[in-house]
Amino acid sequence: MYAVLIDAPEAEAARATAFWSAALGVTAEPFTPQPQFTTLHEALPGLVTAVQAVDDAPRIHLDFETDDVEAETARLLALGAERISQWQECQVLRVPGGHVVCVLPVETDPETFRAQANVWP
Amino acid sequence: MYAVLIDAPEAEAARATAFWSAALGVTAEPFTPQPQFTTLHEALPGLVTAVQAVDDAPRIHLDFETDDVEAETARLLALGAERISQWQECQVLRVPGGHVVCVLPVETDPETFRAQANVWP
Repeated sequence: MYAVLIDAPEAEAARATAFWSAALGVTAEPFTPQPQFTTLHEALPGLVTAVQAVDDAPRIHLDFETDDVEAETARLLALGAERISQWQECQVLRVPGGHVVCVLPVETDPETFRAQANVWP
Repeated sequence: MYAVLIDAPEAEAARATAFWSAALGVTAEPFTPQPQFTTLHEALPGLVTAVQAVDDAPRIHLDFETDDVEAETARLLALGAERISQWQECQVLRVPGGHVVCVLPVETDPETFRAQANVWP
């Protein structure tokens, strides 16, 4: 598990970022390469936490990080998930219960990833 | 920050629990005192993670743990949150951006709570 994303409608994303930054007592840093993301620095232990401005309803979603997006996506589909869309290299899935998750390629530094990742048979 | 709650509609809660347990490779344990909760054991680092069966749409929400529910609620209201409802000793709030959070009394053992909690002026 890589990240907790707080998806906020675009018009409210700045207010949402200000709230979460103050509520959790952490700094908010724009993620320059992709301006829809604002990172909440060390908001949750061991997880990236960010506000994402979206053209959609408010939602919180979780990101699965993997060194094999297709295999991990196939694993989650076999567990009952459904593919919704693709965004860059990320697969967006709806999982049993109705929640949205993303499966994305390794973002963590490779050594940390190898040390912490689950290996699926 | 105490917990990540995966709120699933009642009819899908068992499927959601089975999915998350297998997807994260963790055991799912019913929380006997309140059967709507199923704990996903050590699913996320340093956070309680649970599936909650709800009579509502799917949602993921975050729980704020505090030794003073009224003061913490007042702090979050001052940051722009709105009170939605009360459930037992927990205050349910809608925060800027539209997400739901709960403010609940200390559940962690008191020593750990004191060591890890933020103190707000």
